[in-house]
Amino acid sequence: MPTFVDRLIEQAALKSSWAVVGLDPQVELLPPSLLESAYGEYGHTLEAGAHAASEFCQRIIDVVAPHVVAVKFQSACFERLGWRGVKVCAELVRHAQEQGLLVILDGKRGDVGFTAQAYAEGYLGEVEVGGVPQSPWGADAVTVNPYLGWDSIQPFVEVAKEYDKGVFVLVKTSNLSSGQVQDLVAEGRQVYAHLAELVSAWAEELMGLHGYSSLGAVVAATFPRDAARIRALMPHCYFLVPGYGAQGGTAQDVMPSFNPDGTGAIINSGRNIIYAYYRPPYAEEFGPERWEEAVEAAVIAMNDEINAALAERFGRPGSIRPQKPDLL
Amino acid sequence: MPTFVDRLIEQAALKSSWAVVGLDPQVELLPPSLLESAYGEYGHTLEAGAHAASEFCQRIIDVVAPHVVAVKFQSACFERLGWRGVKVCAELVRHAQEQGLLVILDGKRGDVGFTAQAYAEGYLGEVEVGGVPQSPWGADAVTVNPYLGWDSIQPFVEVAKEYDKGVFVLVKTSNLSSGQVQDLVAEGRQVYAHLAELVSAWAEELMGLHGYSSLGAVVAATFPRDAARIRALMPHCYFLVPGYGAQGGTAQDVMPSFNPDGTGAIINSGRNIIYAYYRPPYAEEFGPERWEEAVEAAVIAMNDEINAALAERFGRPGSIRPQKPDLL
Repeated sequence: MPTFVDRLIEQAALKSSWAVVGLDPQVELLPPSLLESAYGEYGHTLEAGAHAASEFCQRIIDVVAPHVVAVKFQSACFERLGWRGVKVCAELVRHAQEQGLLVILDGKRGDVGFTAQAYAEGYLGEVEVGGVPQSPWGADAVTVNPYLGWDSIQPFVEVAKEYDKGVFVLVKTSNLSSGQVQDLVAEGRQVYAHLAELVSAWAEELMGLHGYSSLGAVVAATFPRDAARIRALMPHCYFLVPGYGAQGGTAQDVMPSFNPDGTGAIINSGRNIIYAYYRPPYAEEFGPERWEEAVEAAVIAMNDEINAALAERFGRPGSIRPQKPDLL
Repeated sequence: MPTFVDRLIEQAALKSSWAVVGLDPQVELLPPSLLESAYGEYGHTLEAGAHAASEFCQRIIDVVAPHVVAVKFQSACFERLGWRGVKVCAELVRHAQEQGLLVILDGKRGDVGFTAQAYAEGYLGEVEVGGVPQSPWGADAVTVNPYLGWDSIQPFVEVAKEYDKGVFVLVKTSNLSSGQVQDLVAEGRQVYAHLAELVSAWAEELMGLHGYSSLGAVVAATFPRDAARIRALMPHCYFLVPGYGAQGGTAQDVMPSFNPDGTGAIINSGRNIIYAYYRPPYAEEFGPERWEEAVEAAVIAMNDEINAALAERFGRPGSIRPQKPDLL
């Protein structure tokens, strides 16, 4: 099987899309028709919430599959509904893959080696039960938190290597107080810059065929100057860029996450896509009854915005890196 | 209801125990009798693994409940078994509480505010479904990762305040490479020291009656000198101390995590307790058939070791902090 990053790059080029749809289902925001049907069947219970979230995400996956390369499951939104939500998440991972999407499980796990190994096997690899290998999750990639250092990342890298999976390490996050730790300056550069250098070195372990590693980085759209610095520090790492849309990042803000040849990043948008039926212009045009059409229109608009910005900035959409990027 | 930290302190004093048993079930290490029965019923499947883990942890909880104040669920070990493992974890949380134990869910979550809110509501608080509040997890406390700064911690603090729950923030972890990020020196002190100061300030939000906050810190036993520095920086934070036992920390190594009056820490031991039947002297004395007796003997020995070290160092076991600690 091709490596994760090669599958990602090839799929993105085929679909001309560098967008990822974030699946962050919140019960209270789901389309009223879905909620009414779930409440009718299961009452006002966690089971009803999990069922409505399942139906919602399944239909979003079907709608967006032709347009984007990957979906990103926000694990918190499923865990919030208890084990029933987690079960729904596991089922949706398979469904998304059946629709040809890559699945990024966004749990931001980080723990000591023994425990990181358990997460890595569970989410990306296989677990032996009585000598028989089982695949509990089968995600294509996960996000991880680097506060514990290399031995908390290494098990993910090893499992990713064995199973052709991907790992995105948090380097610079999109939230306002991300700087409290990440921007502290040690030995002349920010903690995030130290991390960028570390991750860039670790990434050598997972290099693919198109000049990128399956060990990527999470670098927020909300701090474009930091993103530009980080991009220069880790040219071979693919970026997963949060913060676009609902968190305020624009297509211009995500441009610094691409390399000078216009490749190297996928952009996540969650709430602005999946709840498009609540915001202009989609609320007026479609309304909650035609919510799937609103989702599709929003994801097409996002692709267009990013492709237009890429064309303006780099002269071409961010497709496969040519063999000799220095000739560009 | 009393605050989390007051319940913790009062229960620990009643039981004369500052030990926490870490529930880290690994299928391949479970007692053969449990595995055979699960494989017989469910084959070599994740369902069999989850059932065996459930039976194992349930019986450990029953054995250790009279001896310790809390159990700490290592979320990874349950997630590794897929949604069935997560379901088992949720059921065991209730079972442990019915046996009078406090439950710490060790998931080390950390995410942007909106997402942190989902984790906090799910694990510690309540989730509204159609206006009806539900309690998906009902844990007493969680562990969280501070790499994203205050707005990733604040939702946990707010939910903890509303529901009298606890939060332990990673400050210094037990693994070898923890220093890669945590020991970087910024503005004259380590990242972990910055975190200690930040968490100590945030802790004011959750002060209990016995001089401690329900916002505590995870500070490893494996770096006693760092622990001593951190202890001085955050006198009002209760410490959850990992790294004792299987990871190499001794009773002497955990002493710096207590305040000068001998209060302020709970010590976690996982594998050395729950798999005691595999190690001397318990393997010889009990063997895998009498594994529950081995677990009980190991937890009693751990209490004795810590209480002896506390008596030697502070002249008394680490009970409730007196009203005027400065008179000691």
